[in-house]
Parts: sequence; C-alpha cells; structure tokens
Amino acid sequence: MRLRLVARVLALLSAMISLFMLWPLSWAILDKSQDVQAFAFSIVSGFCISLILHLWGKQENYQDLGVKEAFAVVTLSWVTASIIGGLPYYLYGAAPTFTDAFFEAISGFSTTGASIFTDIEALPRGILFWRDLTHWLGGMGIIVLSLAVLPFIGVGGMDLYKAEVPGPIPEKMTPRIQQTALLLWGVYVFLSILQTILLLFGGMNLFDALTHTFGTMATGGFSPKNSSVGYYNSPYIDWVITIFMFLAGCNFVLHYHFLRGKLNAWWKDEEFRFYFWITTGSTLAITALLLRKSIYTNIFDALRYAAFQVVSVITTTGFVTADYELWPVFTQFLLLILMFIGGCAGSTGGGIKNLRIMVLARHARTELYRLLHPHAIIQTKVAGHTIPKETVGSISAFFLLYIGLFTLASLIMTLLGLDLVSAISGVAATLGNIGPGLGMIGPTKNYAAIPAAGKWVFSLCMLLGRLELYTVLILLIPATWRK
Amino acid sequence: MRLRLVARVLALLSAMISLFMLWPLSWAILDKSQDVQAFAFSIVSGFCISLILHLWGKQENYQDLGVKEAFAVVTLSWVTASIIGGLPYYLYGAAPTFTDAFFEAISGFSTTGASIFTDIEALPRGILFWRDLTHWLGGMGIIVLSLAVLPFIGVGGMDLYKAEVPGPIPEKMTPRIQQTALLLWGVYVFLSILQTILLLFGGMNLFDALTHTFGTMATGGFSPKNSSVGYYNSPYIDWVITIFMFLAGCNFVLHYHFLRGKLNAWWKDEEFRFYFWITTGSTLAITALLLRKSIYTNIFDALRYAAFQVVSVITTTGFVTADYELWPVFTQFLLLILMFIGGCAGSTGGGIKNLRIMVLARHARTELYRLLHPHAIIQTKVAGHTIPKETVGSISAFFLLYIGLFTLASLIMTLLGLDLVSAISGVAATLGNIGPGLGMIGPTKNYAAIPAAGKWVFSLCMLLGRLELYTVLILLIPATWRK
Repeated sequence: MRLRLVARVLALLSAMISLFMLWPLSWAILDKSQDVQAFAFSIVSGFCISLILHLWGKQENYQDLGVKEAFAVVTLSWVTASIIGGLPYYLYGAAPTFTDAFFEAISGFSTTGASIFTDIEALPRGILFWRDLTHWLGGMGIIVLSLAVLPFIGVGGMDLYKAEVPGPIPEKMTPRIQQTALLLWGVYVFLSILQTILLLFGGMNLFDALTHTFGTMATGGFSPKNSSVGYYNSPYIDWVITIFMFLAGCNFVLHYHFLRGKLNAWWKDEEFRFYFWITTGSTLAITALLLRKSIYTNIFDALRYAAFQVVSVITTTGFVTADYELWPVFTQFLLLILMFIGGCAGSTGGGIKNLRIMVLARHARTELYRLLHPHAIIQTKVAGHTIPKETVGSISAFFLLYIGLFTLASLIMTLLGLDLVSAISGVAATLGNIGPGLGMIGPTKNYAAIPAAGKWVFSLCMLLGRLELYTVLILLIPATWRK
Repeated sequence: MRLRLVARVLALLSAMISLFMLWPLSWAILDKSQDVQAFAFSIVSGFCISLILHLWGKQENYQDLGVKEAFAVVTLSWVTASIIGGLPYYLYGAAPTFTDAFFEAISGFSTTGASIFTDIEALPRGILFWRDLTHWLGGMGIIVLSLAVLPFIGVGGMDLYKAEVPGPIPEKMTPRIQQTALLLWGVYVFLSILQTILLLFGGMNLFDALTHTFGTMATGGFSPKNSSVGYYNSPYIDWVITIFMFLAGCNFVLHYHFLRGKLNAWWKDEEFRFYFWITTGSTLAITALLLRKSIYTNIFDALRYAAFQVVSVITTTGFVTADYELWPVFTQFLLLILMFIGGCAGSTGGGIKNLRIMVLARHARTELYRLLHPHAIIQTKVAGHTIPKETVGSISAFFLLYIGLFTLASLIMTLLGLDLVSAISGVAATLGNIGPGLGMIGPTKNYAAIPAAGKWVFSLCMLLGRLELYTVLILLIPATWRK
C-alpha cells in the first residue's frame, strides 16, 4: 500500500470540501448568525489538513495507483470528508461531542440522513445548508464510484454495468473515469436545477428548495424542518419530491440516455422495471391497508402518503411525511424489507440494489430447475444476457456479507443496550443509508440518545453500506497492508 | 410425475405409522384412559388410508422412481404422516380443530416442537407419548433423508457429504439407501437407549425418560411437562439432556465412525469444530452476561442455564429450562441468530446448518481476496478440500431461498395481525424447526392463539425447513407436473 500516493488525492479532496464550505459561510454571513466563525475556522482547518497531506504525499501518477490504493482512496475520501465536514457542527456547538459531529457528517456524505439533532429548526441556516450540501456532494461521489470506478475493479458484481456506462472507452482507466463523471454530473446537476425550480413553484423559498433538492437527488434525507417534508403538508410538494426521489433511485446512465433522446431508455431496462413494479406494488398494498384500517379516509391522501414513504424508503432517502410507526405492523415490516432492497445500481440510493436482488432470485430459480434436470446446462439470465458464474458468485458473496454484517452489527447494538426493534431497524437504516428506523430511532425521533460507542458502530455501517462493503472491508484485512 | 408409483410408498408409510400407534395405545390401555378409542380409531383409519393408497397405486419398481417422484415421496411422506398422526389429537379432543391437530402432528414429525396445547399435563399419557414418538420417527426419517437421499439428488450442497456416508457403494441407489439407513438407525437407537438409561438414573420414571429421550434425539422439543425440562430443576438431568441434544446436533456419520473405534472422528471433522466453538462461545458469552446482570449469582447455575438454552436453540430442539425472555436483549438476539445456524449436516437438527454457514463464510472471504489479486485463481476450501463452484452456487441459492422464504412468511404473519417480534421469531422458529420463539410464542407460551391461516403458514414453514426447502418447492412449480 503506497499511502503517500493516496495522501495526494486526499489533499485535493480536503481542499475541495473546504471550498464548498464557502457556500454555507455565505448564508451565515448573510444572516449575520453565530456560525460564521465556525465555518471560517473549519475552512482554514480544511486547507491546513490539505496542505499537510499534500506535503507528506508523493506526486501522484494515476498509473501507479493499484487496486489497493484505489480502495484506500475511496474509503479514506469519505472518512476525511466527514472529519473536515464535521468541524462546523462541533465548533458551532450544534453537536455536543466530536462523535456526534462526525456521525452527522458521515451521515451526510454517505447520503444516509440519520441525525443527532433534536431541534433542527433552532439551528442557523449555514449549518442546515451545509448538512444538505454534504448529501449532494456525497451523491456526486457515489455516482462516479458506482458507475465509473467499481465496475472496473469488480466489486460485488458491479462489472455487469461495464458495457453500459457512457463515455469513451480509452486504454487507461483514469481518463475514462473523468469523462464518465462529467457526463453523469451533468445529468445530476440538470435534475437538481429542475427540482429546485419545481419546488420554488410550489411556494418554497430558495433555501428550502435547495436543501430539499440536495436531500432528494442524493437520496439523503436531511431536512431543515423538524417534521421533515411533512412540514409543508402540500400534495404538490409531496409528489414533486416523490417523483424526484424515484428518479434519484434509478441508474443515472438511463437518465443520460433519456436526455440524449432515447425515450424508451428507462422501460427497456429490466432493473428499472423490477424497481418500478416493486415500488408500485408496495405503494398499492400499503394504500389499500391504510384505507381499510381507516388511517386515511380519502384515497388521494392514502396514496400520497403511501407513495411518499415507500419511495423514500426504497430509494433509501429517509424523508418522512407520516409517522409510519402508527401504521399497521405489516406496512412497517414491508418498509423494513424495502430498506434492504434499496435503489438501482448506478443510482445515489443505497441498500443491496435491485439488480443484485434480481440476479440472486434468478439464481435460486435456476438451482431449482437444475434439480429437475440434473444433466441440463441451465444458465442464469437477466435482461436476455447470461450472467457469468463469477458474477453470480460475487453477488452472492455481497449478499452474504450484507446479511452477516447486518447481524453482527445488530448483535453489538443489543449489547450496547438497544431493544431488538431499534437495534435491527437502526442497523438496517444505517447500513442501507436510509436514515430513520423504528423504535427509539423512529421517523419522529433521532439518533441523539444512542450511546457513543453505538454512534461509531452506526457510522461504520453507513460507510460500509455506502461503499459497497468490500471497499471498506479490504482495508481491514492484513494482506492489504503487506508489502 | 408418476403419482401411482408414489402412492405405493405412501401406503407402506401409512401402515407403519399406524403400527407405531400401537405403542401409545398400550399406554392408554394401561392407564384405562379416555384416549383408547381415539387411538383405536386412528389406527383403523391409518390402515384404511394405507389400503386405498395401495390399491390405487401401481407396483413400485424403484428403478422407475425418477427425481420428481423422489421429491414427491419425501414431501408427501411427511404430509401423509402428519394427517394420520394428527387424528388422535383431533378424535380425543385435545386439538379443537383439525388445523390444530395437523399443526401439532407436523410439528412432531418435522421435529419442531411448536405446540398448540396450553395445559399439557392435563392430557393422557397416550397422547403425550404419541407426540414424542412422532418426533423420534421424524428424526429417523431425517437421518436417512439427509445422509442417504439428498446427497444423491444434489439438494442445497448436501452432495459434499456423498463421500463420507458409510455403507457399501453399489451401482444402484436403493440398496445403498437401505444399508446406510440401517447403520445410522443403529446409532440412533443406541444413543436413545443410552440416554433413556441415564435419565432413569436421574430419577425420571420410564415414561418421562422415554418421551424426553425421543424429544432430545430428534431435536424435537415436545415435553410432557408444562414447564418443559425446567420441571425437574435438576442439574444432572439438565446436563444429560444438554449433552445428548449436542450429540443429536452432530453429523450421525461421525457417531458411527466413533462407535466403530475411530475416537478422533468428531474432532477431525471441521464442521464439528465450527459447531463446537459456536456453541461454546455463545454459552460463555451468555453465562458472563447472566452473572454480570445478576440474573444468576452462582456461576454453575448461570453456566447450566446458558448451556442448556444455547444447545437447545442451536440444535433446534426447543426444550427450555429458563424463561429467556427475561434475559438481556443481547442474549435473546444471540439465540435468534443461533436459530438460523442450526445443527450440522447429517444430524436431526434443522436450520441452515453449520456446514453451509462455513462454506458461505469462506466464499465471502475468497471474494475479498479475489479483489486484491484479480488474476489469481483462488478457490474456496473447507477441511482442506476445494469446494466445487457448483456446490458454492447451490449453497448460496439455498441461503437466498431461506432468507427469502423467511422474509415472505414473516410478512404474511404481520398481515395476519402478529406483532413484529412474534412474526419474525415465529417464522425463524418454525422454518428452523426449533419450536418456541419470542413474544406471543415465547418459551412460556404456545401457538394456540395464532389464527388458523397463520397455523397453516407455520405448518408449511416447518415442512419447508425440515425438507431442505427444495424438496417441497419443486412440487410447487408447474414444470414438475408436465408430462
């Protein structure tokens, strides 16, 4: 592991994070609020960290970056960003300890949206803007990671998408990553501007429209309001956010093709159809149950609240407009299952991903038919393509690790004193990058009361879930560090 | 599917089940109790069913039995046995409906031990003896199934054991199955006699010693006492049952080799060591926590109760000596995890099985190393043997199906009105063939209050779990029934 090569990349990142902090600083200056000093100090600290890393680091030559270094760059980028990004919360005093500040920052950059703030509306606009900006930046990072980096280093079956990624196919990896990143960021920025305009039309002020857009496009879920999107109580706003959360949960490559004029790009994609039908089916099932149990008497209300919560959970956003803990147990469990499914590969959404669930379901079915016809050669197919055995193996291993880490982390949380429902849903919500869970971290509550050790476990879960497990785990095995 | 070939096998089975009912009938006659008529009528009905099946069926020629028929024989054997075996409960009136009677019978034959009886001690000895005899017969069936049938039809990676099964290796499958069955039944009967004698030494009467032995060796868990094994409050009895539950959770092939003089047969087996360390580790962790939380103040008590509950759950027996719902949440969740792990392959225990967990954990690790060395050929090894890719794929598919069915069944149970903890633990307890769960079906409660539809779902879970999923699922796909 050539850490000094990695350091140069991190130096660049630290400087960029500090630069982006100028934006919340402007809100703070505009408001003449108390967080001006916190941001100023954080920006200076960020640049100092950048300088130290730069001086210690060695001249980067991307060709020298091996697989190990690639994993280190990715994981340490999120950690470094969260350390610098947590400074304003700590310095302003919004977070009582650095543990809390780091938790809030990594929850932002990992686009999770789990918060330790109890009274959000009491915080100045600079702090609130920064929270959502961390989401938006994290979402940008994820699009590049999942569509331009992971397919080429073969993590968890993401190589299935190798062929579909737009951009040139050059000999070397780095120019391709840069090119792909720019194209996809274009789509990301375009959709963000569109949503902001639509929210402004709905009566939001610019601050609210921007922060909610950031939280939506990154499938993050931080809201500057205590009662999340429920604050506005507006069908228009609910539906705009529902639709954009849904889009943020799609593979961004499809949006790219759609915007380039291939109007059937979405429907032609099998993963999209799977994601569409799961979302629609769950929404209709919950709508029916909410009406039957008379939780809403109006079908439009029931549909609106069901759709919002379903899309918010499956895309792993975590915005809320209704306290689903008061809904029937069936709907709560269904939402818990959707947390595991997550968004599409190549989206900003977390979770296991629809593509993987599809491949695994097909694989199980293939095995069933193999028993009937032991001598036939039966292959696992998705979208007409035969999935190589290696990819099925890689995706199975991803699923096993996901379930294994979920179990282990839940067990640790019960040891730290959480009840069963809070422990299980909390790990599902952080590992899947959703945000709110059930029980003591339910939709109307927050993570403030979790013990400090538990906040670190949850932080690690957010990092693991966001970086497709392997990227982080590989840094934890000795073989990575051997010469 | 040649159902008339299958019918002949089921006719033989029905007659055998009826013959075995003579044993509880003798207790009933001895006690001059009210269940004499119920058993007499059930035996006659069983023979009638046998006759009808025999007359409708065609002369069996084992060579004609194909893969489809093999699956049908296995699944329908358990269903037929449970229909006939449920008759005494229904006719005597111990079970208020046939749903309850079938539930209790399939819970017996599948060696689950989930009961709908609220006051067990109020029932006559004939009925109670039959409950435990169904366990013992089910356990016999499972040993043959898992060591002599499944390895040769390749279900869920059980073919890994093909080489290790004792007995001759003839050209045709049937003589080998018969030979292997006899050898392993010898071990099963020998261990049963040994445990019965040891329990008699502990002060149990013959009835109690036999019923508890049946419940132990089959990892079933029905007890003729309301408070299960806790009734005796005897360290000697607790430890005898703990040790024999542990043995029943081992691969019976190891016992066979041990009894033939290979004293290191157990420890040489990698699955045994894995099972041993998980059991020991969990016991020690729970003992420490029980002492720390002052639930027991004496280390011997803490160890005894921890060991009993851990072994009872991991072997999927389900006997209880302590109300673990009063224990810390961590221990409850640990027990829930052990429910999923289950016994060893080739034991009477249920669950996913230690061997599969080992192979899957190794596979996930292999994938991690593959990322570091993309061009190296890295294979999954267990016990020094390379596991073929097909077997890893088959075991992965088994795990996926297990998790998938667990999720689906839990979701249905919440729809039927169960709370989250009862639904999840109930499905885990029936799919894993354990018996008691948490919440409304906790260790001091029973399944009587579950709605009828829920009892059928749980019955299906017991059948699926016991017959390694595929054996049952294959009968549910149309391709099996096509000409």
